[in-house]
Amino acid sequence: MPTLPVEHSGPPERGDAARNRALLLQAARRLVDERGAEAVTTDDIAAAAGVGKGTLFRRFGSRAGLMIVLLDEDEKAQQQALLFGPPPLGPGAPPLERLLAYGRERLMFVDAHHALLSDVGRDPQMRFNAPMALHHRHVRWLLETARTTGDLDAQATALLALLDADYVHHERTDRHRTLDELADAWETVARKLCGS
Amino acid sequence: MPTLPVEHSGPPERGDAARNRALLLQAARRLVDERGAEAVTTDDIAAAAGVGKGTLFRRFGSRAGLMIVLLDEDEKAQQQALLFGPPPLGPGAPPLERLLAYGRERLMFVDAHHALLSDVGRDPQMRFNAPMALHHRHVRWLLETARTTGDLDAQATALLALLDADYVHHERTDRHRTLDELADAWETVARKLCGS
Repeated sequence: MPTLPVEHSGPPERGDAARNRALLLQAARRLVDERGAEAVTTDDIAAAAGVGKGTLFRRFGSRAGLMIVLLDEDEKAQQQALLFGPPPLGPGAPPLERLLAYGRERLMFVDAHHALLSDVGRDPQMRFNAPMALHHRHVRWLLETARTTGDLDAQATALLALLDADYVHHERTDRHRTLDELADAWETVARKLCGS
Repeated sequence: MPTLPVEHSGPPERGDAARNRALLLQAARRLVDERGAEAVTTDDIAAAAGVGKGTLFRRFGSRAGLMIVLLDEDEKAQQQALLFGPPPLGPGAPPLERLLAYGRERLMFVDAHHALLSDVGRDPQMRFNAPMALHHRHVRWLLETARTTGDLDAQATALLALLDADYVHHERTDRHRTLDELADAWETVARKLCGS
């Protein structure tokens, strides 16, 4: 695949822009990890990155724009781990083991990224498109290689419903369930569907 | 339980209002059955009911207001059938049979009421509150009486995800699946969870 040529001698503004972008993402990630996405403002991020707030809006358009870049980076890292990382999440482990590892890993991911995933999930188009389609494909494929009987699309959908950001948030906050309880519940359903 | 006193001698406007309300609901229901909710306008409904459009807005506030009353009436009729109607949907059949009958019945309901249910489902609060909570409780209770093992809340959620209005609509329109295929898929998942 051809790669874009790397600009080595751009005007100084280009280098500054890239540097500021990286600083802002780094600062945003640290603050979100520390406090949760809801508690992080653009003022906080700009201050922590040591740049002006105008720079944040020039680089990302809005707070939501920056958060979507963060989510996208994390989604890509998780996809990498699912497809190419070490077992049991990545290849090498038996499909059922990989499926169970996926459930626990994804549960932690949607818990940590609740606010943004919830926004994205509110759009009915997004719910059935990338990146959600990738998760469906992955779970469906693990069900298939685990020789699960019946309609695999429906079973993948049922499993992913238990990893929906709004559902997990509701169970955690309104019903006071722990991530471990939700992971165990997911495992039960996955095992039943796989017939194990 | 005390009932509200019935007004027998109200001014004539009250009687007209009630009559117009009933005529509008009746007309809306007939048109929605014939063409689907999306294709029915307030002009159509008012004309079919033989009343002015202003009357429609006075009685229901908006097109959405009228549609919500229709949905609510249908939800109540379905709840009545689930709880008190003839078997296999209502009491008298074994729990697994009732559960399977529920899946098929609800699938037809959400298919017929897609437009409105989709609106309501977009609000994350509504997704976990009445009337959705009633369906969760019903499915959970059938799982329990069928002696299903494991976390029943999660399994009820997984089953209801396959009866989500947006999901069913997506499968029907984008993936060209029939209601029968979706009902069969639901039955497979339900049987696996119940261990049958």
